[in-house]
Amino acid sequence: MAPERILLPHRSIRVFRSEPLPDGALERLVAEAQRAPSDATAQMYSFVRLADPESRRRVAALAGDQTHILTAAEVLIVCADVRRLTVLLELNGRKPGRFPATGLHFATVDAALAAQRLVDAAEAFGLGTVCVGGILDGIEELVDLLGLPRGVVPLFGVCLGWPAEDPSERPRIATSSVLHTDHYRDQEREAVARDVQEMAATTRSRDWVKVLSRYFTEGGVMETREPALRRVLERQGFAW
Amino acid sequence: MAPERILLPHRSIRVFRSEPLPDGALERLVAEAQRAPSDATAQMYSFVRLADPESRRRVAALAGDQTHILTAAEVLIVCADVRRLTVLLELNGRKPGRFPATGLHFATVDAALAAQRLVDAAEAFGLGTVCVGGILDGIEELVDLLGLPRGVVPLFGVCLGWPAEDPSERPRIATSSVLHTDHYRDQEREAVARDVQEMAATTRSRDWVKVLSRYFTEGGVMETREPALRRVLERQGFAW
Repeated sequence: MAPERILLPHRSIRVFRSEPLPDGALERLVAEAQRAPSDATAQMYSFVRLADPESRRRVAALAGDQTHILTAAEVLIVCADVRRLTVLLELNGRKPGRFPATGLHFATVDAALAAQRLVDAAEAFGLGTVCVGGILDGIEELVDLLGLPRGVVPLFGVCLGWPAEDPSERPRIATSSVLHTDHYRDQEREAVARDVQEMAATTRSRDWVKVLSRYFTEGGVMETREPALRRVLERQGFAW
Repeated sequence: MAPERILLPHRSIRVFRSEPLPDGALERLVAEAQRAPSDATAQMYSFVRLADPESRRRVAALAGDQTHILTAAEVLIVCADVRRLTVLLELNGRKPGRFPATGLHFATVDAALAAQRLVDAAEAFGLGTVCVGGILDGIEELVDLLGLPRGVVPLFGVCLGWPAEDPSERPRIATSSVLHTDHYRDQEREAVARDVQEMAATTRSRDWVKVLSRYFTEGGVMETREPALRRVLERQGFAW
């Protein structure tokens, strides 16, 4: 049931040619990102470009030695940002409200929508990209390194550059697993087994459950990330 | 400084022709959405399609009588979903960890990335789209209506259909306002004034600060949304 494709294939690219983007290209791509929809057109996100090689080195290290952070032509840290709006309202004599959960909700969605439009634009432009969730492994150091004020939280990184590899697309679970009609329904055992089988090619061990277990079970990566993320959310004003 | 465009222009479309999508088109678009990057390829999101006219009517009402929810060819509720993964791990004899903040973080990002790729694919296919943040106004009713289990939170809606209007693109703040280099820097008064001026065309009153104030100041829409969102996050297992 391979459907016809509408957009270009997406593969994460982690090996880049050592060639910068053309002058102005990054700004063009960010301008494309900005066209993404945004609730109340509030645009509650920021991108922090890592230009300083020392910043790149530190971010690569805190994300678990991801070398593509060193070698990509550009690296952006995508941030949820209610701070800019707060400054705007205060400079215009208004008193900002307090809505930590709702602020994080809308700012995270705004930021991710914009980042995905940036990825789609970058790929249409011929670039390769990889999104880096591993910055969560060193999120407190990252907040310090980028000088993020209260109201701003880093979400993930995006590396951009000219591809020096041509991997095939990785599989996804069945469309029927993510698309529900009118009511949410849990997956049956057969559908889960089919997805696990389908996703085998995503990993060298051909055992997707093993990969997921490393992240999502007791004592896994996600539990390890939890305390630092909570401290950052608290410090940046998003605890409730 | 109008940059050359890479992707199609994006405008929200709220008036649709009463014509369905071709057979299989929605599944093709969701398959495109699924190509979006996803941390650990965990794909922690679900789309709930509103097929039942009564569901449409109730969602349109809880979102503040948004008629495009009634008239769009398709309406999807985009959800952060750690539930499917939990079921998968349990069916495979693994014990899922507890990471409410981190789970919500990754699932919200995964869901928004996929939804934006769906929007980009839909526009490349000739459809119009509008994202609906206003479902937050009735998020508890929505959780009940869709039967969302613990681990699943609705984020926003996406309406899709054949456009019956051709609005111009709405402005955005300056690219320099969202793009920082190495360190976050607050906006100066002049930059804020320029953005407010630039965004005037976004609203009939030509007063963007007034629009933002309605949402983001004390007693505004975002504060009103806060208690119900917190209750939903608690009930769905994302409080910490």
